[in-house]
Amino acid sequence: MSLPNRQLLLVRRPEGAFRNGDFSLATRELSEDLAPGEILVRNLFVSVDPYLRLLAGGGETFTQPLTLGQPMASWAVGEVAASRDPGIASGDKVVTYLGWQLFGICPGAEARKVSGRLPLPAYLGVAGMPGVTAYLGMFDIGRPKAGETVVISAAAGAVGSIAGQLARMHGCRVIGIAGGPAKCRHVVEDLGFGASVDYKAAHFPSDLGRAAPEGIDLYFDSVGGPVLEAVLPLLNPFARIVLCGHISTYNRRETPVPKGWEFLLSRRVRLQGFIVGDRLDRWPEALARLEHWAAGGKLRYEETIIEGLENAPEALHDLFQGKSLGKLVVAL
Amino acid sequence: MSLPNRQLLLVRRPEGAFRNGDFSLATRELSEDLAPGEILVRNLFVSVDPYLRLLAGGGETFTQPLTLGQPMASWAVGEVAASRDPGIASGDKVVTYLGWQLFGICPGAEARKVSGRLPLPAYLGVAGMPGVTAYLGMFDIGRPKAGETVVISAAAGAVGSIAGQLARMHGCRVIGIAGGPAKCRHVVEDLGFGASVDYKAAHFPSDLGRAAPEGIDLYFDSVGGPVLEAVLPLLNPFARIVLCGHISTYNRRETPVPKGWEFLLSRRVRLQGFIVGDRLDRWPEALARLEHWAAGGKLRYEETIIEGLENAPEALHDLFQGKSLGKLVVAL
Repeated sequence: MSLPNRQLLLVRRPEGAFRNGDFSLATRELSEDLAPGEILVRNLFVSVDPYLRLLAGGGETFTQPLTLGQPMASWAVGEVAASRDPGIASGDKVVTYLGWQLFGICPGAEARKVSGRLPLPAYLGVAGMPGVTAYLGMFDIGRPKAGETVVISAAAGAVGSIAGQLARMHGCRVIGIAGGPAKCRHVVEDLGFGASVDYKAAHFPSDLGRAAPEGIDLYFDSVGGPVLEAVLPLLNPFARIVLCGHISTYNRRETPVPKGWEFLLSRRVRLQGFIVGDRLDRWPEALARLEHWAAGGKLRYEETIIEGLENAPEALHDLFQGKSLGKLVVAL
Repeated sequence: MSLPNRQLLLVRRPEGAFRNGDFSLATRELSEDLAPGEILVRNLFVSVDPYLRLLAGGGETFTQPLTLGQPMASWAVGEVAASRDPGIASGDKVVTYLGWQLFGICPGAEARKVSGRLPLPAYLGVAGMPGVTAYLGMFDIGRPKAGETVVISAAAGAVGSIAGQLARMHGCRVIGIAGGPAKCRHVVEDLGFGASVDYKAAHFPSDLGRAAPEGIDLYFDSVGGPVLEAVLPLLNPFARIVLCGHISTYNRRETPVPKGWEFLLSRRVRLQGFIVGDRLDRWPEALARLEHWAAGGKLRYEETIIEGLENAPEALHDLFQGKSLGKLVVAL
């Protein structure tokens, strides 16, 4: 028995930004035969994240680049269609790493059953990898103290929006950096950050300085580049930088380094590169709390949902253009 | 009662490298009247260190720049000539921060009596601030594990020479980076490093790669610049960088930033700026062990001794030219 499976394949390594020809839509037959322990999942939502650019190859990254001709890797949430894992039943909702395809088979041990307390896309966002990135990046790496000034880049995005709320709940003064007036309003009015600063504004560095009159104690960096350069001179002694990403430079062959290296010494900064997949032992705590807070309304989250697998490459392109708000997912 | 006191004053903020006109030799009368608790010290050796360039001003630094017209700040070791501190007697040898002058008065509480187990200049080096910098930088910040590959910049210098030996004693494979064949030989043959690499050689980055076939787990950085750039691509996952200085750029108005920022994320590097004066509570442990190891011959140390206070500016100039070996001090 087999079924037709729609897949979005990565067929070419991007040079610079992703282009349409880097992907190809295909239909392949998927055998429904399951080995013991395996499950067949029908994906309902797949994730679109900045780190996919790093995985696609062509630059320095934290892991092996993806194999060409395979479905684009990503987190997905779906419904179990068949199971030979005794712990998982047909109809269960699971988070997997099956990528951009309609169906997939994986060991049940690699799937995470979700409670359904939250709408399914949330398990790709606030109660998924981005939420855990925010949680562990903030608490395990950044370690804020109540009363400190915390600056969040990409503050209207999937990670930044959660990281900033966590810091606020922890008693910090939180400043969000986002692109454009609408996102800046969202960050303050909807997410409850103390202030926001528009990195696209003409006087961004001085705007940031005015927003942080007592200096910056912790910077959660997902963007690198000029935003990081604006932060460095404002750091207080013993500041921390959670180096979570540098999306502003993912598309470039040579990563320009920010001006202001000397501040890392003079302010005795602790800067730490952080990949959430390194800390799987910490995920259960993070996921449990994030889901609890989100279900209780304590954590706000936004989603941008694009319809149709065929539109996933365009969604990825939009992500790098800063067009989405909150977590970007594709509904299949 | 007063005595004539020779002083080397900082009279002008340097632009770029120190020049002769930045300093002025002066003789001033020093009143010998001591307040309760004060001591009068005759300096015997004063210290010459890279961080003095930062203190002199004109660039980003970790503290207030020095006041012009005062003796150049520095650690000094000398003999107590008179004391109104009941814990300190005439003839005691003390380390103070009295700077580049023949005599000075300070509270006894700010002086550290030394045992004399080591020759006096050693209390400005292996058993002084540079040794403590190496000890705390290596063990509190870098935290090496036995078997790891540790790379030390300025390996023939006052800090690097000790830092590398400490890592070797800890069971690490240690590679020293130094300028020129003579220093490179010294680092291996006299200090016992596992290997050395000449940063002035034509193929330095590839030489370093060959010397570290298993990658680099810990980099003790006192120099910044091109040496740091050569290290970054060789870092292993979860490597640490002890950011202790960046002497290669102290003389420049704009600190050029190293290429390779992306490696800090992809290798999940922890990089920490470190100023030894922030951790005074840790000095006693470090000083006791360093003196013990040095006295027992377990830690080797070199000194370059320049005669005459009037030659201190030239010594400082030579330091930035990499002309000295080990700790550079001026004998008065």
